[in-house]
Amino acid sequence: MSELTLKAEKLDAADELAALRDRFVLDEGVYLDGNSLGALAAHVPERIADVVRRQWGELRIRSWTESGWWTAPERIGDRIAPLVGAAPGQIVVGDSTSVNVFKALVAAVRMAREQGSGGGDRDEIVVDATTFPTDGYIAQSAARMTGCALRPVTPAEVPGALSSRTAAVLLNHVDYRTGRLYDLPSLTAAVHAAGAYAVWDLCHSAGALPVGLDEHGVGLAVGCTYKYLNGGPGSPAFLYIRRDLQDRFDSPLPGWNSHADPFGMRSDYEPAASAIRGRVGTPDILSLLALEAALEVWDGVTVEAVRAKSLALTDFFLECVAAYVPAGRVECLTPPAHGERGSQVALRCPDAGDVMRRLIERGVVGDFRHPDVLRFGFTPLYVGFADVERAARVLAEELLG
Amino acid sequence: MSELTLKAEKLDAADELAALRDRFVLDEGVYLDGNSLGALAAHVPERIADVVRRQWGELRIRSWTESGWWTAPERIGDRIAPLVGAAPGQIVVGDSTSVNVFKALVAAVRMAREQGSGGGDRDEIVVDATTFPTDGYIAQSAARMTGCALRPVTPAEVPGALSSRTAAVLLNHVDYRTGRLYDLPSLTAAVHAAGAYAVWDLCHSAGALPVGLDEHGVGLAVGCTYKYLNGGPGSPAFLYIRRDLQDRFDSPLPGWNSHADPFGMRSDYEPAASAIRGRVGTPDILSLLALEAALEVWDGVTVEAVRAKSLALTDFFLECVAAYVPAGRVECLTPPAHGERGSQVALRCPDAGDVMRRLIERGVVGDFRHPDVLRFGFTPLYVGFADVERAARVLAEELLG
Repeated sequence: MSELTLKAEKLDAADELAALRDRFVLDEGVYLDGNSLGALAAHVPERIADVVRRQWGELRIRSWTESGWWTAPERIGDRIAPLVGAAPGQIVVGDSTSVNVFKALVAAVRMAREQGSGGGDRDEIVVDATTFPTDGYIAQSAARMTGCALRPVTPAEVPGALSSRTAAVLLNHVDYRTGRLYDLPSLTAAVHAAGAYAVWDLCHSAGALPVGLDEHGVGLAVGCTYKYLNGGPGSPAFLYIRRDLQDRFDSPLPGWNSHADPFGMRSDYEPAASAIRGRVGTPDILSLLALEAALEVWDGVTVEAVRAKSLALTDFFLECVAAYVPAGRVECLTPPAHGERGSQVALRCPDAGDVMRRLIERGVVGDFRHPDVLRFGFTPLYVGFADVERAARVLAEELLG
Repeated sequence: MSELTLKAEKLDAADELAALRDRFVLDEGVYLDGNSLGALAAHVPERIADVVRRQWGELRIRSWTESGWWTAPERIGDRIAPLVGAAPGQIVVGDSTSVNVFKALVAAVRMAREQGSGGGDRDEIVVDATTFPTDGYIAQSAARMTGCALRPVTPAEVPGALSSRTAAVLLNHVDYRTGRLYDLPSLTAAVHAAGAYAVWDLCHSAGALPVGLDEHGVGLAVGCTYKYLNGGPGSPAFLYIRRDLQDRFDSPLPGWNSHADPFGMRSDYEPAASAIRGRVGTPDILSLLALEAALEVWDGVTVEAVRAKSLALTDFFLECVAAYVPAGRVECLTPPAHGERGSQVALRCPDAGDVMRRLIERGVVGDFRHPDVLRFGFTPLYVGFADVERAARVLAEELLG
């Protein structure tokens, strides 16, 4: 037994979160793709079966009230809230991340313009040029539809790009490709100091590390729920609207679910007085309630504990890779500093596509990002240190083979 | 046994669709709210369980390709296509009806403007003022974001409201409240003759009656799938983009799923060359695949046969109501002419809210629409003539009681 195998054993033995693994359906492989699709929590199938057979099949239309369907978007938002550092009443769940980015960015531009001292002149949306593509595409559309110019810059260039023309800034908390964690508190403060609004994309941080939305005064944020929150394939995204901005949130998608009196069927639109105005159409109940069930695995678990384990996992993975993989065979894109690292490790090598195919055949599941990146996501709720050592060992074998 | 009970028996005995009822989970009551939430098809729970336990739980990320998750939006669109008279390759499923109305209306305005002879001056969106409220709210937002004025008129006033300024017209095929069916062919032709684009909302006609999208040259249409298509609570809506317009469909929500090369992760946006450009973000798999399973009840069933039975059901309901309910106690809002009737009957009475509560207590489930409307939806796949007679009889008792 190698030194690193022994170390993995010790780390697993000392891991206070180790028992959580039993809450999930896993196989004998190593699943390091929870940053793309989280694993299934073991109790979820039975809960979905109840939603389908009893709530839909037997109660049918009555479930909108009797099974709490109607209020699911905000109820589940409140369940996510503590995981991203938000007090209740500020998050609604529904629609895809892309649609929520659109709502948030357009609303941000409108808020920036309505305030005093030349707000009306604000005509730029700054966007992280390294972002997951959908954010850039949607930002382009939001800019076009609000009469703004889109200004793509690297995250490091954001502070220098801000001016009295900036209306909104779309930022990623963790880069989907490299796993780099950005400094949310200081970037938010810089954007606000410029009189603009930041929209944070939390897809790769929600459920992986503390976000501190309230603490850092973030105004608007969106995130997905099928990665570290394990909500299931394509489960609805969430939208955070800081409490004091809710009255000013002017949605470009004012569907009937966002109305103050949705069943009044009024022809005039009056937005709801809370984060509910971030809702749009009829909520997608099966996916929402699967997510709600999945969130129960967080009972008694803090995101701080998850973060501590996440850093230990990625540290250990980097240590194993350094020990097993010949120097120069891969290049690590993920920053070594804890303060700059999300919950994934990205390694670059020219044959990444082939390597990942072979890894998956051997039960080590990460993913490949065009053209040359191996991504490994570490979900502390169900990934252990022995998994990490094995993944690095198999990776080394395939890189040498 | 009354004359109408006997008649119901005969009608049920002659009903070629009667056996379809066994494909659904129903109870001893009469469910006349399928125009709000369709009933559960009996085979759907097992299919969802497989999606959850095997596709998500075991295959996890591999299911995006191996279980056909990625292509579900267009595959399921093709499954809906024959029910609304569309050839394959023109429908995608995803997002809510509200979000799809937004996509379609904005795209319609853009198409109207790009064409020759003063298209750029088109600055009005005409909307059915009696529409389901969300359509009006979303039309208002689409108008605001495209620099158009919103012009709400009654459907009868639409032809007279069209002009060289009209960019887009949002119309309902069947009114959600009264059940009135509008003349899709002639209204579409009038809108096109004015150089504008019609967007049809098919929420209350898809799966209830022949729509003939291709036949009547409709350009854009949206519809929901949880009413007569029985997709489940909040199941995703569909978007129809006529084939020859697909290259010109310029979506306001250009998420990464609509990209020509979605996994290229390119920073520049290049829309897909087909109806796929109506997609936005990651599709909601649980709800989509529940819908896909639900659509199997249509195997061997034509929408023409469904329509014939629907008219027979609503005719018989009106006959029973006329026989059982004292004249003047209720006012029928649904037109008597077949050509103007959808698949529901709306009755107005001052105490409608109370009456519907008592009906539901007795197992006759319709719904109430503020302030004074009783709605009864007739889904020919699972409603029979004895149900209809019983519903009218119980209604009469409660109206007299």
